[in-house]
Amino acid sequence: MSEIKTLTVAELAAASGGRMVGDGALHIARVADLETAGSGDIAYVEDEKFFDKARESRATCLIVNREYVSSQKNESASAFIEVAKPKLAFALIAEILHPQKRREPFVHDSAVIAKSADIDLTVFIGPHVSIGEDARIGAGTRIEAGVVVGDHVSIGRDCVLHPGVVVYDNVTIGDRDILHAGVCLGADGFGYVRGDLGYHKFPQVGTVLIEDDVELGAYTCVDRAALGQTRIGRGTKLDNMVHVGHNCDIGERVVIAAQTGISGSVTIEDDCVIGGQVGFGDHIRVLSGAVIGSKAGILPGKIVRPGVWWGIPIQPLDEYKRLNAHLGHLPEMRKEIKELKKQLDELKKRSG
Amino acid sequence: MSEIKTLTVAELAAASGGRMVGDGALHIARVADLETAGSGDIAYVEDEKFFDKARESRATCLIVNREYVSSQKNESASAFIEVAKPKLAFALIAEILHPQKRREPFVHDSAVIAKSADIDLTVFIGPHVSIGEDARIGAGTRIEAGVVVGDHVSIGRDCVLHPGVVVYDNVTIGDRDILHAGVCLGADGFGYVRGDLGYHKFPQVGTVLIEDDVELGAYTCVDRAALGQTRIGRGTKLDNMVHVGHNCDIGERVVIAAQTGISGSVTIEDDCVIGGQVGFGDHIRVLSGAVIGSKAGILPGKIVRPGVWWGIPIQPLDEYKRLNAHLGHLPEMRKEIKELKKQLDELKKRSG
Amino acid sequence: MSEIKTLTVAELAAASGGRMVGDGALHIARVADLETAGSGDIAYVEDEKFFDKARESRATCLIVNREYVSSQKNESASAFIEVAKPKLAFALIAEILHPQKRREPFVHDSAVIAKSADIDLTVFIGPHVSIGEDARIGAGTRIEAGVVVGDHVSIGRDCVLHPGVVVYDNVTIGDRDILHAGVCLGADGFGYVRGDLGYHKFPQVGTVLIEDDVELGAYTCVDRAALGQTRIGRGTKLDNMVHVGHNCDIGERVVIAAQTGISGSVTIEDDCVIGGQVGFGDHIRVLSGAVIGSKAGILPGKIVRPGVWWGIPIQPLDEYKRLNAHLGHLPEMRKEIKELKKQLDELKKRSG
Repeated sequence: MSEIKTLTVAELAAASGGRMVGDGALHIARVADLETAGSGDIAYVEDEKFFDKARESRATCLIVNREYVSSQKNESASAFIEVAKPKLAFALIAEILHPQKRREPFVHDSAVIAKSADIDLTVFIGPHVSIGEDARIGAGTRIEAGVVVGDHVSIGRDCVLHPGVVVYDNVTIGDRDILHAGVCLGADGFGYVRGDLGYHKFPQVGTVLIEDDVELGAYTCVDRAALGQTRIGRGTKLDNMVHVGHNCDIGERVVIAAQTGISGSVTIEDDCVIGGQVGFGDHIRVLSGAVIGSKAGILPGKIVRPGVWWGIPIQPLDEYKRLNAHLGHLPEMRKEIKELKKQLDELKKRSG
Repeated sequence: MSEIKTLTVAELAAASGGRMVGDGALHIARVADLETAGSGDIAYVEDEKFFDKARESRATCLIVNREYVSSQKNESASAFIEVAKPKLAFALIAEILHPQKRREPFVHDSAVIAKSADIDLTVFIGPHVSIGEDARIGAGTRIEAGVVVGDHVSIGRDCVLHPGVVVYDNVTIGDRDILHAGVCLGADGFGYVRGDLGYHKFPQVGTVLIEDDVELGAYTCVDRAALGQTRIGRGTKLDNMVHVGHNCDIGERVVIAAQTGISGSVTIEDDCVIGGQVGFGDHIRVLSGAVIGSKAGILPGKIVRPGVWWGIPIQPLDEYKRLNAHLGHLPEMRKEIKELKKQLDELKKRSG
Repeated sequence: MSEIKTLTVAELAAASGGRMVGDGALHIARVADLETAGSGDIAYVEDEKFFDKARESRATCLIVNREYVSSQKNESASAFIEVAKPKLAFALIAEILHPQKRREPFVHDSAVIAKSADIDLTVFIGPHVSIGEDARIGAGTRIEAGVVVGDHVSIGRDCVLHPGVVVYDNVTIGDRDILHAGVCLGADGFGYVRGDLGYHKFPQVGTVLIEDDVELGAYTCVDRAALGQTRIGRGTKLDNMVHVGHNCDIGERVVIAAQTGISGSVTIEDDCVIGGQVGFGDHIRVLSGAVIGSKAGILPGKIVRPGVWWGIPIQPLDEYKRLNAHLGHLPEMRKEIKELKKQLDELKKRSG
C-alpha cells in the first residue's frame, strides 16, 4: 500500500513507549503475523494462548507483555519490545512502518472545481473529481479519483476521500476522516406521505455532520435529515455497506459492522458496539455501552439498555441462550407430554 | 439544499387548498418541526398526540386539522392553515418553499456524449458524464457528475440522476424519476448453469424498465432480465441498497425499505409495503396490499396474501405474536412437565 | 445488449454438440423462453414438467433431451437440437447468438494513465478512467467509463471492468474476470484496537487476489487483508452487494447470492453454495460441498460440514424443519399441559 521504511528495534521501542529486550540495532521493515513473519518482520503476542506459536515464530522482533518475557526460556526472536498492550503497540508501530499513502499537494488538470470553492494549498485532488460551489477543503486532505463533492460542503484537515465518494450539498465533514470508496453522504432520507394518488416526498432538507476521526467503509450511506441533522460522532467506525437513515444520531467511539441498517431517528449513544446485518426500527435509543450481536433485529421505539443483546427481537444474551437451549428440548417435551397423558389415562382407568 | 423562497401564509394556504386562520401577511421561509421551529418557519400537527407540543411551538405558522383549531384556546402561532391532512399539506408546501435544486440547461465540457445520442436542449449534464450510442434523454432531465449511461438507453423528462449512477445498455427510464447516487440499472442477473468444469453464464439478455415517478435510493441495484424484462412500476419508492433480481416485476406505488433483497422472478403487486432487510426467495408473488415487516424471510414460490406478515419464514403478524408469546413460556412449560411427572409418579406409587 | 447474429439450426447443433432433428436450414436470431418465443427464436426444455408448455411454444427451434424427442407426437417447433443437458446447451448457444459486447482496442482521450503503467495494445479504456503507477493490464481487457485502478494493480486478459469499479493499490486480478458496476477491491478491512481514548486502526497492509473466471456483482466489496491476502478462487460467482471481509479465503466454483456478509478470516472451500443475506461470524470454515440457505447466520469459529444448513444459528435443514414443525405445536402443548394438570388434580383429590 505504501513505501516501506526501515527502523531499528530501539527506535520502535522508543516510539511505542516499550522496553527493549535484546538486540536494539536490528532493522525492522514490516509488520507480520506470527506464522508468516520472517527476517525484518515484527509481530505481536497478545496473550498466553499464542505463547507456543510465538516461540516458533521467525520474526526478527516480537512485541510482548511482561508475562511472556518472564515465562520464556529459549527465545526464537532476536529482540523483544515489552509493553502492557502488545496488540495496541503493534497497531501504532504499523502506522510508523506503513504510513498511509502520501500524496503531494496537487490538483489534477481534469478536476472540475467551482471558482467559489475554498481549497487549501496542501490538498491533493485526483483525476475526474468535481467540487461544487462554496465547498471548503482543509489542509492535507486527499480527494481521490472520481470523487464528487456538492455545493456548500465543508471538509476538514487530513481527510481521505477514496475513489467514487459522493457528498451531496451542505454536508459537513470533520478532520482526519477516512471515507472509503463510494461512501455516500447526504442522499435524501426515505420519507413519503401517502396521498390519494400515491406517495409525495416528505421534505428532506436537513444536513449530515460527520465529526472528527471517523472511518466509513465502502458504500456506506448516511442520509440527510428530513429536518435537522444526521450525525456520526467523533471516533466512530462503520464497516462496508452500512445504512444510516435520516435524523439518526450516532455517538462517539461507536463501532458498527458491515451491512447493518439503521432506520430514521435512531440514537446510538457513545461507546456502543453493533454487529453486522443488524436491523434497527425507527426511533430506537441505544444507551451508552450496549453491545448488539450480529443479525439482531430491534423493534421501533425500543430503548436498549447497557449489556449484551441478541436475537430477533433482541433479548439479553443470557436469555437468548437459555431460550435456545429450551428450544432444543421441544421434541423431548412433546414426547413427555404424550407419555404423561398415557400414564394418566391408565391411572384414571385403574382408579376407576 | 437550494435557494430559499419567502411566501406569505395566505399564498401557502391557497397553494395547499387550506383555510387561512390569523395573519395571512406573515412571511414564511422554511419548513421545520414543532420543537425547533422559530420565526419564519412553518410546522405541522398531524394528530392529537402532538397538540400540547404544538401549543408550545414558536413556529410562525402551523398546518393543522379542524380538530386542533376548535380545541385551541390560547394560540402560540400567529397563523394557521387548516387542512384535512396536515402532513400531506406540509409535504406540498415544503416542495414550494424548498424546490428541488434547479440546474440551467448545460453540458459540461468534460462530458463524453456519443454523436448518435439524442439529448434534449434543456438537459443539464455535469462533469465527467458518459453517454452511449443512441441514448435518448428527455427535456428537463438533470445528469449529475460522473454518471454513466450506456448505449440505447432511454431516459424520460424531468429526471434526476445523482452522481455515479450507472445505467447499462438498453435500459428504459420514465419521467420524473429520481435515481440517487450509484443506483445501478441493468447489471447482469445472477444465473449460471453448472457444467462438468464449473459454472456457465445463463444468458442475461433482457432489459430493465423503470416507469414514471419512481425514486431509487443510493446504490440500489435493479438487474437486467435473463430473457424479457425487470420492471419497477409507476410511483414506486425504493430505499438505499435494495437488490432487485432479474425478471422481477414490482408494481405501482410499492414502498421497499433499505437493504431488502429480492431474488429472481418475484412479483410484487401494486400498493405493497415492504420493510428493510427483507429477503425474498425466487418466484414469489406478493398480492396487492400486503405488508411485510422488516427482516422477514419468504420461501421461494410462496404466494403472500394481503395482510400484515412477519418473521422467518413469514406468518401473519397475529400468529407471529402469539407464537412469540408461547415461546416466552417455554421455561415454565418445562418446569410444569417435570412437576407433573413427579406428581404422577407419587400418585402411581400411592395407588400402585 | 449486443449486435444480433443469425445462425442456422445445423450450425447451432454442431456448436453445441447436439443432434439435429428437423429442418437444419432454419435461421435462429435469438434465445427466448418457451412462452414468449416466436419465429427466429430458440428455447429449451429442461425436463418433463415443461413438456406441455413446449408443445405449445412457437419457437422455431427447441433444445430438448432424448426423452422429449421420443415422447412427442405432434410437434410445434420446426426443428430440435437433442442434447443430454438442454439448459447448459441453451447457455452455450446464447453465448454464440448474443456474444458479450465487443470493444475495439481504444484508449479514450479523457483517461488518465500513469506513464509507468503497462497496458496491452488490445485493451479498451473508456472515458474518465484512472490507472495508477506500475499497473499492468492484459490483452483484450475492457475497462469501462469511470473505473479507478490503483498503483501496482495487476489485471489479466479478457476481463471486463464495468463502470465505476474501484481497485485499490496492489490488488491482483486474473483472466476472464467480470466485475460489475462499482465492485470495490482492496478497501481496508475493518479492524481496530481499543486504546484509552478510542480506536486505533489495526494495520490493513495485505492484498486481494481474484483468480480467473470470477464474476462479481454490482457493489460487491472484497476487503484487503490485514496481513497476508484475501482470495476469491477460480470460477467463483458472487451476486450484488456481497461483503467479503479481510483475510477471507473463498475457494473455487463457490456461488454466493446477494447481500451476504462474510466477516474476517472466513474460509469457504471449493464448490460451496451460499444463499442471499447470509451472515458469517469470523474465523468460520465451511467445508467443501456445504450448502447454506438464505438468511442463515453462523457463529464465529464454527466448522460447517458438507450438507444443507439453515437458520440462525445454522442447523442441518432436516433438524430445522423438524424444530419448526414442533414450534407449530407449542400452543397445543400448552393446552395439553393445562389439561393434564387439571386431570391430575382431580385424580389426586379423588385418590387423596
